[in-house]
Amino acid sequence: MLRVAVLGAGRIGRIHAANAAANRQAKLVAIADPFGSAAEDLARELGGAASTDPEAVLARADVDAVVIGTPTDTHVALMLAAVRAGKAVLCEKPIDLDIAKADAAVAEVERLDGRVMLAFNRRFDPASQELRRAIDAGEIGEVRQVIISSRDPAPPPRAYLEHSGGIFRDMTIHDFDMARFLLGEEPVEVMATASRLIDPNLAEIGDFDTVMVNLRTESRRQCHINCCRAAVYGYDQRFEVFGSAGMLMNDNLRPTTVRRWSSAVTDAREPLLNFFLERYADAYRTEFEMFRAAVEAGAPMPVTARDGRQALRLADCALESALTGRAVRV
Amino acid sequence: MLRVAVLGAGRIGRIHAANAAANRQAKLVAIADPFGSAAEDLARELGGAASTDPEAVLARADVDAVVIGTPTDTHVALMLAAVRAGKAVLCEKPIDLDIAKADAAVAEVERLDGRVMLAFNRRFDPASQELRRAIDAGEIGEVRQVIISSRDPAPPPRAYLEHSGGIFRDMTIHDFDMARFLLGEEPVEVMATASRLIDPNLAEIGDFDTVMVNLRTESRRQCHINCCRAAVYGYDQRFEVFGSAGMLMNDNLRPTTVRRWSSAVTDAREPLLNFFLERYADAYRTEFEMFRAAVEAGAPMPVTARDGRQALRLADCALESALTGRAVRV
Amino acid sequence: MLRVAVLGAGRIGRIHAANAAANRQAKLVAIADPFGSAAEDLARELGGAASTDPEAVLARADVDAVVIGTPTDTHVALMLAAVRAGKAVLCEKPIDLDIAKADAAVAEVERLDGRVMLAFNRRFDPASQELRRAIDAGEIGEVRQVIISSRDPAPPPRAYLEHSGGIFRDMTIHDFDMARFLLGEEPVEVMATASRLIDPNLAEIGDFDTVMVNLRTESRRQCHINCCRAAVYGYDQRFEVFGSAGMLMNDNLRPTTVRRWSSAVTDAREPLLNFFLERYADAYRTEFEMFRAAVEAGAPMPVTARDGRQALRLADCALESALTGRAVRV
Amino acid sequence: MLRVAVLGAGRIGRIHAANAAANRQAKLVAIADPFGSAAEDLARELGGAASTDPEAVLARADVDAVVIGTPTDTHVALMLAAVRAGKAVLCEKPIDLDIAKADAAVAEVERLDGRVMLAFNRRFDPASQELRRAIDAGEIGEVRQVIISSRDPAPPPRAYLEHSGGIFRDMTIHDFDMARFLLGEEPVEVMATASRLIDPNLAEIGDFDTVMVNLRTESRRQCHINCCRAAVYGYDQRFEVFGSAGMLMNDNLRPTTVRRWSSAVTDAREPLLNFFLERYADAYRTEFEMFRAAVEAGAPMPVTARDGRQALRLADCALESALTGRAVRV
Repeated sequence: MLRVAVLGAGRIGRIHAANAAANRQAKLVAIADPFGSAAEDLARELGGAASTDPEAVLARADVDAVVIGTPTDTHVALMLAAVRAGKAVLCEKPIDLDIAKADAAVAEVERLDGRVMLAFNRRFDPASQELRRAIDAGEIGEVRQVIISSRDPAPPPRAYLEHSGGIFRDMTIHDFDMARFLLGEEPVEVMATASRLIDPNLAEIGDFDTVMVNLRTESRRQCHINCCRAAVYGYDQRFEVFGSAGMLMNDNLRPTTVRRWSSAVTDAREPLLNFFLERYADAYRTEFEMFRAAVEAGAPMPVTARDGRQALRLADCALESALTGRAVRV
Repeated sequence: MLRVAVLGAGRIGRIHAANAAANRQAKLVAIADPFGSAAEDLARELGGAASTDPEAVLARADVDAVVIGTPTDTHVALMLAAVRAGKAVLCEKPIDLDIAKADAAVAEVERLDGRVMLAFNRRFDPASQELRRAIDAGEIGEVRQVIISSRDPAPPPRAYLEHSGGIFRDMTIHDFDMARFLLGEEPVEVMATASRLIDPNLAEIGDFDTVMVNLRTESRRQCHINCCRAAVYGYDQRFEVFGSAGMLMNDNLRPTTVRRWSSAVTDAREPLLNFFLERYADAYRTEFEMFRAAVEAGAPMPVTARDGRQALRLADCALESALTGRAVRV
Repeated sequence: MLRVAVLGAGRIGRIHAANAAANRQAKLVAIADPFGSAAEDLARELGGAASTDPEAVLARADVDAVVIGTPTDTHVALMLAAVRAGKAVLCEKPIDLDIAKADAAVAEVERLDGRVMLAFNRRFDPASQELRRAIDAGEIGEVRQVIISSRDPAPPPRAYLEHSGGIFRDMTIHDFDMARFLLGEEPVEVMATASRLIDPNLAEIGDFDTVMVNLRTESRRQCHINCCRAAVYGYDQRFEVFGSAGMLMNDNLRPTTVRRWSSAVTDAREPLLNFFLERYADAYRTEFEMFRAAVEAGAPMPVTARDGRQALRLADCALESALTGRAVRV
Repeated sequence: MLRVAVLGAGRIGRIHAANAAANRQAKLVAIADPFGSAAEDLARELGGAASTDPEAVLARADVDAVVIGTPTDTHVALMLAAVRAGKAVLCEKPIDLDIAKADAAVAEVERLDGRVMLAFNRRFDPASQELRRAIDAGEIGEVRQVIISSRDPAPPPRAYLEHSGGIFRDMTIHDFDMARFLLGEEPVEVMATASRLIDPNLAEIGDFDTVMVNLRTESRRQCHINCCRAAVYGYDQRFEVFGSAGMLMNDNLRPTTVRRWSSAVTDAREPLLNFFLERYADAYRTEFEMFRAAVEAGAPMPVTARDGRQALRLADCALESALTGRAVRV
């Protein structure tokens, strides 16, 4: 029975807290959020003690593991504090927006032999797991090309964007992680193009809303990522893995398999699940369970702090490539 | 918080017990099974008190509702006992294999104003619910034809078949209920054809393995059901509802959306979910929740004992039609 | 080089004339239509001599084969005249609306050893041919159940219906032929239900617009047919063949594979091809070519006059069953 | 009635000759091929006069239009000779492998006001036409991203590759043309990555077998192309166009819509059409017809010599980018 504290009672913290509470082999012990009554409200619903002081929660002896779902700029401090307090950590992405800080944090985690898992939820989607399993089983031979399509239903507010680190570090970072997950090799070169097709005013904050990135690994496998901050048809998440002996694809999820025929449309499928909380509900559940199982078994973490750092590095390379028009060595 | 006892710790009882245990607004209080340690094993896993005496469990004051998942020939007695003990009841189908006994039971339940829900799980599948919602919303206008395809992955053992009541009462009964659910009107005429294409020896017990049934309502809407005890490709459950303004279809469920391309196949989808426990896992969960909500709200049951009787009556009519070659008035 | 005359320059005659004209191994020699300038217009477009006298065309020595696309009540006379004139015949369905006349015509054709092919175009659709080929190759083992869905985009005018012979003989007759084609065995029992869900006034002419038919063969294979005179989403033509080792399905055709995603729909496919002339354009072409090839090779006709008679007989049985509520032996 | 001569009686010349012969408003007058009896064999099958001397055919007064399907290094000379002889020209891609020669040829064609259409067949596929029509109709708003997947079933022989100009000029050139066709704007920047994942020995001839290219237009629309010389599952040709108001996709073609279910696969579709001759049979037919119609109407060519030059230029840029690791301005 893993005793868990959740730091951060916002949108993502609530997901983790609910999964901890519902997991038969875990116990939600505490929830901390510095802002108002968020932690209290959540604790009332799910159980556990509420607190406005994350540090105090890290000091509790009855906490084995900590989920960090606080704002990005607090990740490093809390992660290191948790590691030093001997807790296992499941930390939301990114580690930090600054690669130097992320590097230092990862080095410190490794020096301390800390148990840290980065919360790249998409890896834990059942389809992602099946893609990885099929590749490992040799079903498609040697991987040649990976294609990742990743579009959000609508852009976040400007206030969010200003502190987001930019589209590559905030949004595409998930796709960089999936690229590494599916390629099975480390990308060594990044080429990117970036546009402002939704909001030209993003120039004011040096950000973009529509990007394409190509990656290449040492053995010259290739990966393409396309990302857009808005798609009128909803949250679009598709993967294609093409290899010497076949191809694998996965598709978006929908509420049901019902198809509609009318005078206007034939064979129209249901709308896509709204956004990441709905689309990846299963993935978040599995992610928590795999964290729990790894911690309790003392097994290697399914995703490490170093994985978090690598995705951030690819994001930095993509930005540099988009700005300079040159392929950037990772 | 609904306090629930589950009678029967077999395959179906385990499902209900697990759903009761996982439901935040219900509490699994007791599990009864007359055979060996089944109830004890299940209670150890899910909580609640184990018993080998269903009657004793019905006598408990701390039980508000009872789920009956015992063998068919015990349904009526337990259902009536539970109603008389003032418990709400979720009873597995069929009420009984004998229409006269079923009629008497339904009459008694109604006389006692008992709260009984029949467990026709397929109605609670998200796709079934969406079909019903879309029909009610007028999306396809007036319903004209319903097509139900229903095939099991493999036939049950002979020993089971001998006490099953025959394919119409044991297997097609689910489809009769879905026909009523989707037609939105009571069938008044039944025409059936029945064959032994898998096992000619079923003639020894007067049973069939492959059947087709057509139903007609008073306003002359039509429904076709095809049923087979075995399909090499798995558990096949499809619905089509055709109306004056459109058509709705639903498809089988699969573990993920992954599609495969190789030198042998292109765009092949994942295998079907194995059988009803997997295919209707969500439906069983929703069924229990809707039972719980109806009981606690004092609202009408989503499926009544009388619904159970109607499906059985259609099964009897189908058998008569198959044997006589005549359309049978319900 | 087969020298062909086409009798009838209406909708269906034009199709056959165009296919004859475009076939490199056939030559369109003559077109006959008693009404006005229809034959002349068509001959101007496609070549060949125009005539208002079918008998005169049958007398031409330079005609090897005749396609009969005239009104139904002229089929028998023209077919027999053509056979007596030593011509090979491709005759539109049905032979006649009266089974006695059809029986007599078939007997006479057989006595004369006439070369007559019935134009059941659906058999020649590439998908139908692939279904038959796959069944013959044993891909699905023993056929158990066939499901045929057949819906027209809109009902024909009342004037047409009054001389159509009724839905079973006019529309479902195609499905009866496909049932025989796919079952691979002769149906011996017919059960039918018939409704007037589009136009209750059809009662005045004893016709129906929405029907369901179940067929059974001697070895007790089963077939279900559902038919409706109108479907708002277009001309719907689907087959499913379920066997001991698998299942085959085919789907409707569309102009292209383009799929659309918008704020209103996701993954919506293109509308169905409008009606039989578009949907079965390939089938008509193949039908003519197989007729030509069989005639020139002296090989058995792919569909015989007797096949035409059998489909009509099933239509009659279905009507009797719908009216009496009894299974009818064929 | 357009009188047509076809130069080249190889694989592609045969396609064009057959389409000219089958077109009711064209007449195949002559076929020229310098090698052996190829032209004679084809003329015997399709009609027209055979010749081993293309120049002699260009001199014929009874030829209005010429289709050039000869080896690439003869394209420029024949194109210019035909233009000077006053013939309309449908020329296979590419104009030439050398951009300077292509530039000079295009300049000369334009100076002479020559009527030249480049044979980029994919634009004339019904799905491509529908994509373009839907974009023009505003169905998806402003185009943001285009994704093109283009994989051949198997690599050509080494002897072919040595004179092919390399994958970008030989294979991807089709995709560059489709990128321009679908983007609706001229690409101004090219980024490419190239690998040898099938055959490392391609290094000997400076070629690649697996490439990814990203394009950007002046208004910063984006396009991704992925190309591979081999795919075990067959000839893969897919397009996706993502815009501000929706998305369009098209899919590969298959012989029929039949889907298979067995103990091994469920819902498996038919194999892809083998290669470009089969996949684009309709496109070649439409291409010829649109050429014919434009010539006879004196209307602008649907694809010009300059379009051919632009695609070649993009191929050159892609190669340069792949070799230098820099985005290349077009």
